[in-house]
This record gives sequence, structure tokens and C-alpha cells, in this order.
Amino acid sequence: MDSSSLLGQLIEAFRCLPGVGPKSAQRMAFHLLERDREGGVQLSSVLQAAMERIGRCSVCRDLTEEEVCRICANDRRDSSLLCVVESPSDVLAIEQATGFQGRYFVLMGRLSPLDGVGPAELGLDELASRLRDNPPEEMIIATNPTVEGEATAYYLQRMAQKSGVGVSRISHGVPLGGELEFTDQSTIAHAFSSRQLVAEK
Amino acid sequence: MDSSSLLGQLIEAFRCLPGVGPKSAQRMAFHLLERDREGGVQLSSVLQAAMERIGRCSVCRDLTEEEVCRICANDRRDSSLLCVVESPSDVLAIEQATGFQGRYFVLMGRLSPLDGVGPAELGLDELASRLRDNPPEEMIIATNPTVEGEATAYYLQRMAQKSGVGVSRISHGVPLGGELEFTDQSTIAHAFSSRQLVAEK
Repeated sequence: MDSSSLLGQLIEAFRCLPGVGPKSAQRMAFHLLERDREGGVQLSSVLQAAMERIGRCSVCRDLTEEEVCRICANDRRDSSLLCVVESPSDVLAIEQATGFQGRYFVLMGRLSPLDGVGPAELGLDELASRLRDNPPEEMIIATNPTVEGEATAYYLQRMAQKSGVGVSRISHGVPLGGELEFTDQSTIAHAFSSRQLVAEK
Repeated sequence: MDSSSLLGQLIEAFRCLPGVGPKSAQRMAFHLLERDREGGVQLSSVLQAAMERIGRCSVCRDLTEEEVCRICANDRRDSSLLCVVESPSDVLAIEQATGFQGRYFVLMGRLSPLDGVGPAELGLDELASRLRDNPPEEMIIATNPTVEGEATAYYLQRMAQKSGVGVSRISHGVPLGGELEFTDQSTIAHAFSSRQLVAEK
């Protein structure tokens, strides 16, 4: 495709989207041009507004176009529970799946010294002042169970303990609907070692 | 997701793209917001320009932001060969795969009376005047081998014959690298019946 034409530029621009290769980008461009110009115009204007106006919540660091996000601004949310997650999509996943009515803190990443991501980049100073000035009863750690997520969880746990805040961690193990046979070894090993007693003998 | 927030609107807007469901739309929105704002701004401005400025070539009906597309405007292309295709993506596919140096005519669809697509919608009047005023030696029909594409091909063939223009059709059969075992029955039947003699006895 001639990349100096507007069509070529459009196809190239779609490649900034995750999971979009040359063929999908072509398909997207032709679809909008041939069948959905209105949708294309709408996408372009919403995208522009979003890129310009969406920033971070000054309280929880989640993405929002307001100074303070709707969850933080909602007086009815329970301030005694604080859930710490890695990214805004985790907030969305928890909101959609659970009835959690507490508050969040979004790290926007995980500790990864080799990539230059330390406590400061994750806003852990802000979290520390929040734990000190406005301590919750319980801090729920919901980082991902990867090596870096675990290291981050350990760091968070020590922070909370220093501030005298209770800490919990969401459970990990065999997913519901999953089968042992098709579950990876480390998950099975973890599920086995963190088994819970359901009846005393 | 709260659809009144800008983030919710952005996720919704991405759904106008083909093959993008709620989860991919979320992933796209978060990717641009967290990791590639520049790409998002670029996509938004190119998209707006493309939706506003890309129209149809007045000669071949292909998509272009000019009055006449680059292929039609190129004097070195061979006017004695005219390839008729259903859509702009077919032009792109032929340009990328072959060394074809002739000209194109883009139907932007195929005959489909039930959907209200007749000869006028496909610009066949324009094609007829082109065949009359500036006849090529050969018209190559490259519509898709679907029921409607075949009907369109038959119609085109009759038009060309009326104008005394030679007609050819790209070949159909077992794709290169394909295996008979995994090729559908109608393709095998077609390949069989349109077999070509490679040596006289």
C-alpha cells in the first residue's frame, strides 16, 4: 500500500491498536470508508477528546476525565476497604464481577527494577500517606500472580503492616469451571499448598 | 462500564470496527490511554481527515482523496487491460500479488437484487460508456466466486461481448499450497471440470 496516500496513512495509523496487524488494519479502514463513515467520524472525535482530556484521578490514580474519579467521589463507597490493583482494567474487572463497595488504589504497573519501575513510579508515596492519614481497616492486594506482581504484593504487605493496617490477598488456585488435568503445574502446586480446612476431624 | 464517562464512550466507539467486541474495545482504549497517547492522537486526526476527504475516483470508482486515483492518473499503466473487481481491497490484493500494469474498475459491491443492488448501483452505466468510448483489448473479470459474484461476472461478460471487447476470468480451483483432502467439495468439483490439457497424447 502506498503509504503517502490518505488511505495508506489510515491503515498505518490503525496499527497502533493492540493485536491489529496489516490485514486487520486494512479491513478496519475499508469497513469504515465503505460502510460506516458515521462510526468513523464518531470514533475520531471521541478518541481525540479522550486522548486530550482523560488523565489520572488525584486520589486513586485511576483513569478519569475529572479531577477525582467517580468511585473516589462517591460518598457511599466504604472507606474502610482499600483494594490495590495494577491497572484500570483490573478496577473494571472487579467492578463487573463482584459487589465490592470499597475504594481502590491503582498502581499503573508493578515493581520492576530492571525496567526502571520503582515505588515512586507506582505512586507508593501517595499510598503511604493515604495509609497514614486516612487508614482503611483492610487493604486488599489484588496484583496479578506473576513474579513481579508477587514482589509488588510483598512490598505492599510490608507497607500496610508498618502503618498498622490489616492486609488480605485475593485467593489464587484452580479457576472455577477449570479442570485439574488442564491446569498448569504451578497453579496446582499453589492450590495444593494453600488448601483450606473445611471440617475438623 | 459506565457509558456516560469519556472512557465508556471511547470503549463503545471502538465497537464500530469490524471484529471488535467489548473485550477488545476495552483493551484498545486502555492500551492507548496508558501506553500510546501519541498513537491515539495520530489515529484520531488521520481518521477524521480520511472520513472527510476520501471519496471515489471519478474514473474507476476506487477510494481516493483525489479527483482521479493514482492508478487512473498514471500514464504508464496499460489501457488495453481493464480488470473489474468488487471492492477496493481487491485492487490492493491484486497490486500486491501480481505485476498487473493495466487499469481497474471497482464495482463497490456485486449484483444483489434482493438487497436493492442493481447495475446502476455498481456504476455499470459508467463501465458501459468506458467500454464504448475507450475500449480495452481485454476485460479481466475478477469478481469473487460466490453465487452473487458469479451472476455479476455473467452480466459483465455479456456487456463486454456486446461492446466487442475480449473477456477473461481469473482462474478458480484448489489454492496453491492447499491439499485436496481439506478442500471443499464444490472447489474440487470446479477444479475437476475446468481441468486443462497439459500434453497432447
